[in-house]
Amino acid sequence: MNRSNSASDNGSKGADFLQLRIADAPPGGRADWLAQRLRTAIADGVLLPGTTLPASRVLADDLQVSRGVVTEAYQRLTEDGHVEGRGRNGTVVVAVPVPEPGLARPRTLAAEGIYTGTPGVRVFDDVRSLEARVDFSPGVPDLAAFPRAAWLRAERVVLNGVQPSSFGYGDPRGVEPLRLAVAQWLARTRGIRAEPHEVIIVAGVSQALQLLGRVLPGDGISEVAVEDPGSLGVRQHLQHWGFGTPPVDVDESGLRVDQLVHCGAPAVLVTPAHQFPTGVVLESERRRALLAWARAGGLVVEDDYDAEHRYDRPPVPALRSVLSEQVVYTGSASKLLAPALRLGWVVAPRRLQDHLVDAKRFADLGNAVLPQLVLAELMSSGALERQLRLLRRRHRARRDAMVEALRVHVPSATVHGAAAGLHLMVTFAADVRDRDLAAGCLAEGVKVQPLSWHRQRPGPPGLVLGYAASSPAAIADGVAALGRVVNFAAGRAPVADATRLER
Amino acid sequence: MNRSNSASDNGSKGADFLQLRIADAPPGGRADWLAQRLRTAIADGVLLPGTTLPASRVLADDLQVSRGVVTEAYQRLTEDGHVEGRGRNGTVVVAVPVPEPGLARPRTLAAEGIYTGTPGVRVFDDVRSLEARVDFSPGVPDLAAFPRAAWLRAERVVLNGVQPSSFGYGDPRGVEPLRLAVAQWLARTRGIRAEPHEVIIVAGVSQALQLLGRVLPGDGISEVAVEDPGSLGVRQHLQHWGFGTPPVDVDESGLRVDQLVHCGAPAVLVTPAHQFPTGVVLESERRRALLAWARAGGLVVEDDYDAEHRYDRPPVPALRSVLSEQVVYTGSASKLLAPALRLGWVVAPRRLQDHLVDAKRFADLGNAVLPQLVLAELMSSGALERQLRLLRRRHRARRDAMVEALRVHVPSATVHGAAAGLHLMVTFAADVRDRDLAAGCLAEGVKVQPLSWHRQRPGPPGLVLGYAASSPAAIADGVAALGRVVNFAAGRAPVADATRLER
Repeated sequence: MNRSNSASDNGSKGADFLQLRIADAPPGGRADWLAQRLRTAIADGVLLPGTTLPASRVLADDLQVSRGVVTEAYQRLTEDGHVEGRGRNGTVVVAVPVPEPGLARPRTLAAEGIYTGTPGVRVFDDVRSLEARVDFSPGVPDLAAFPRAAWLRAERVVLNGVQPSSFGYGDPRGVEPLRLAVAQWLARTRGIRAEPHEVIIVAGVSQALQLLGRVLPGDGISEVAVEDPGSLGVRQHLQHWGFGTPPVDVDESGLRVDQLVHCGAPAVLVTPAHQFPTGVVLESERRRALLAWARAGGLVVEDDYDAEHRYDRPPVPALRSVLSEQVVYTGSASKLLAPALRLGWVVAPRRLQDHLVDAKRFADLGNAVLPQLVLAELMSSGALERQLRLLRRRHRARRDAMVEALRVHVPSATVHGAAAGLHLMVTFAADVRDRDLAAGCLAEGVKVQPLSWHRQRPGPPGLVLGYAASSPAAIADGVAALGRVVNFAAGRAPVADATRLER
Repeated sequence: MNRSNSASDNGSKGADFLQLRIADAPPGGRADWLAQRLRTAIADGVLLPGTTLPASRVLADDLQVSRGVVTEAYQRLTEDGHVEGRGRNGTVVVAVPVPEPGLARPRTLAAEGIYTGTPGVRVFDDVRSLEARVDFSPGVPDLAAFPRAAWLRAERVVLNGVQPSSFGYGDPRGVEPLRLAVAQWLARTRGIRAEPHEVIIVAGVSQALQLLGRVLPGDGISEVAVEDPGSLGVRQHLQHWGFGTPPVDVDESGLRVDQLVHCGAPAVLVTPAHQFPTGVVLESERRRALLAWARAGGLVVEDDYDAEHRYDRPPVPALRSVLSEQVVYTGSASKLLAPALRLGWVVAPRRLQDHLVDAKRFADLGNAVLPQLVLAELMSSGALERQLRLLRRRHRARRDAMVEALRVHVPSATVHGAAAGLHLMVTFAADVRDRDLAAGCLAEGVKVQPLSWHRQRPGPPGLVLGYAASSPAAIADGVAALGRVVNFAAGRAPVADATRLER
C-alpha cells in the first residue's frame, strides 16, 4: 500500500482537498465543526484509512483559524477512534469499523412456515440456514470423507508445475488437462466416447442448465419435460431460464416414455442411471423407446448426477454413449467429492457445442483454473477412483443403517431406491401430508425433504432421506425421531420411545 | 470401483444382457459377427471397461454355438485391444481409447483476419489461442508473481480448519469469512462501508454483469450507457444480456456527464478510479455531476477493476462510498492476484440485493468454497496487501520500461494513463488504422489491442498496451517491434532497426 509515502501527497492538500470553508462553521463551534467534517470525510471514504492528516499548523494556516481549533478537532477524532496520533509521523486515519459477522442478517426465518405452500426459489437456502441435529437433506456425499490430504498434495503438484500464463484469462471450455481427464473418466466409468475438446467444464449441473437456457431457445426449444416425481431444484432452474416443464410420470421402470411422446415437448431432462428421487433405473425397453424418441428428433438432457454410486452392479451406460447427437450429457464432482467444488461438465451434440461455449464465456469466462487442475490431477492419478471406492463402502454402510432403522422405527414406510445413490425415498400408504411429517421432523431437530416438493402432480406421500452425509449413529437417531413423528401423525402409540428417553 | 466382484453379475447375464441372437449371424461368419457385436457393445458403453465377459463355455451354451466360435471372437477382441485375458479371472473389457489432447481442435484460426471487421464475441479467445513472442493484451497483472507458496500455505490452513459441512451446498452469496474480508478490504482500500451480508461473491466482474442482466430489467432498466472509449469486453457482455449500450464520450476529465444526461439512459457503467482504456480519473466536478445524476434516480455500475494499482497517490474513494443506494459496486481479484481465480464481489443497493442473490443462485448456486476461504485467509492475514505492494513495485518498473521504450522507438505516440494501472494507452496523430498496426504487430509476434476495438464511435487511432505481465526485456523487445510497424505504416525509415538485427 505504500501508505506512509503517498498519503502525505494527499494530506498535504489540507483544507483544499477536503473542500473546507471556515465560513460555514458556526462561531464558537469551530473545533466541533471541523471534527464533524473530518468524520464525514472519513466515513464517506474521501479520507482513506492510512491517510496522514495535514499537520495541525498547516491546516490552521489554510483555514485561517488558530492551531488550537485544529488540535482540538484532532483530539476528538482520536477519542472516537477515527484517527491515531503517531508521533513524528503525524495523525493518521485508521480503519473504518466494520461490524462483526453474524450480526444483522436481514432475513429472519420462520422455521414452521418452511413446509407450507409451494416451495419458493429460496427454499433450499432457507432449510440450510436452519439449525438441526440431523440433516437428511439429499444430494451430498459423505462430506467428512473429503480427501483433504490428497487435495492438498495435488494442489502442491499443480502449483509447482503450472505455467504463469495459466493464471491469466483462459479457455472458457476449461483447462485441457481436466477436459482430457473427464473424457477418460467418462469413457472408463460411463461408456461415453468424447474427445477432450468436446467437454465443457462448468460450475456444476446448475450452470449447465443455465447454458442450456441460453442456447436451446435458439434450437426452437422452449419446453423441457421433466420426470414426476423429479428434482425440485432442477425444475426451478429450468423454469428460471424460461422453460416450461411439463411433467411425465415415473413408474418402477423409469420414465413413462409414452407420456413423453404424448405431451409433445421437444426435450426432456432425465436421470436414467438412478432416477431422482425414486431411485429406479430406466429399464431397457423404456430406454429403447426413449432413444427412438430422440432419434426422431427429441433432445435428451441426461443428468447423470450420481451414477457412480451403485452398490449392486456397474451402472448402466449413459444414454449419451449410444446417441451422441441427441443427448446433452451433464455430470459433476458434487457427488464424487463435494458440491462445494462447483465443478461439473457438459458433453453436448456437436451442433450445440459452440453456442454452449459462447454461453459459458458470457456466464463467467470459464471456471477457476486451479481447482480444475487439482481435480484433473486427482482423476488422472487414480486418487479419485480410490476416493469413490472408499465412499461407496462408507455410503453402503450408511444405507444399511438407514434401511435397518426404518425397518425398526418406521415399519409403515415403503423403502425405494436402496440399490444405489446417496438417499432413499420412502412412501406411506397412510393418509398423511408429507410436509407435515417434514415439519414434525424439523421440530424434532431432523431435516428431511417431503416427496411432494419433488412432484408437480399429486401422488402418495413420502420423504426423501439422504443418508450419505450422516454417521450411522446420527442416522439411527434421526430415523427414530422420524418414527415418532410418523406414529404421532398416524395416531398410533410411539414405537421405540425408549430411544428418546435414553438421550 | 469394486469391479471384479460386481462385474460378474453383469457378465453372467451373457447373451441375454447383450441381446445377441445367433439367428442374426451369417452362416460361416459367426465368430466375426460375435466379435463385431461385442465391439459395438464396448464402444456404445453397454459393456463397460472392467466388465468380465462371460466364460466362453457359458456364452457358447447361451448362444448354442460351439465354444470355438466364442474363443475365436474373444481372440479378435484381444488382438485389437478391446479386451484382455486375465487367466482365471476371465476375459475383461479394457478402457475405450480416447484420443490424445491437442488433436483435432475443431476451429482453426486465420490470424490475419482477426483485426478486420467488427470484433466478434470470440475475439479475445481467438487472440489468446494465437502464438506470440510478446503479449501486451491488457487486463492481467504480473502472472509470474502469483504467490504460489502463500496460496498453498493458506490452502493448508483452510483444509485443516474447515468444517465438513462447508463441503456441501452453501450460501449463494459466498462464504462468510470472505464476505467479511472483502468488506474490510473495501473499507480499508476503497472507503466503502459495507456489512459482510451485503457483499455477494461472484465469479468475476463478467458474472456480476450477468447478474445485473437478470435483475435490472425488473427495475425498468434496458439500457446501460458506457464510456466511449470503454472496454469492448464489458460492452459485449452487457449486449449479450440484452442491454442497449449508448456511448458517452470520455475526455481528459473522465465521463462527459452532460452527454449521459442527454442520452437519457437510466444506468451507466463507469470506471471512475482509472478509466479503461484511457487511464483518466473522473475529476471532482464530473464526479459531483455524476452523483447528482444518480441522486436524481440514475443507477451507476461502478467497475472498480484496478483501482488499487496507483503509482502516484492513494486511489480516489469509490463512488459507492458516497452514494450506496444508487451505486452497484463490483471488483475482483483478477488484477490483485490472477484472472484465473474467477473471484469477484458485488455490493449493491439494498433494493437489488435479494434479486442479485437469486440470480447468483440460479447462475451456479454460489462460488466454489475452498478458493473463497483461501482468498479470505490471504486478505485477513495481510498476505494480499504484501502481494499488492510487491506487484505495485514490479508493475511500476514495467510501466517505466514501457514508457521509456515508447519514447525511444515510437516517439510519434502520445502516452496516456501512465499514473496507474496495468496498461498504457497510446494514440497517434498520423492517419493510420490502429487495426492495421495491431495486425502488423501480430506479424512481428507481438499482441496489442487496437483502441478502435474499445470505441463505439470514430476517434483517433491508438493502441492499448498491457505491460504488467511482461518482463522489462520483453517490453523493450515488443515496443521495438511496435516502433518498426508504426514507422513502416507512416512510411518513415525505421528507428532503432539495430534492435532487430541484434537478435
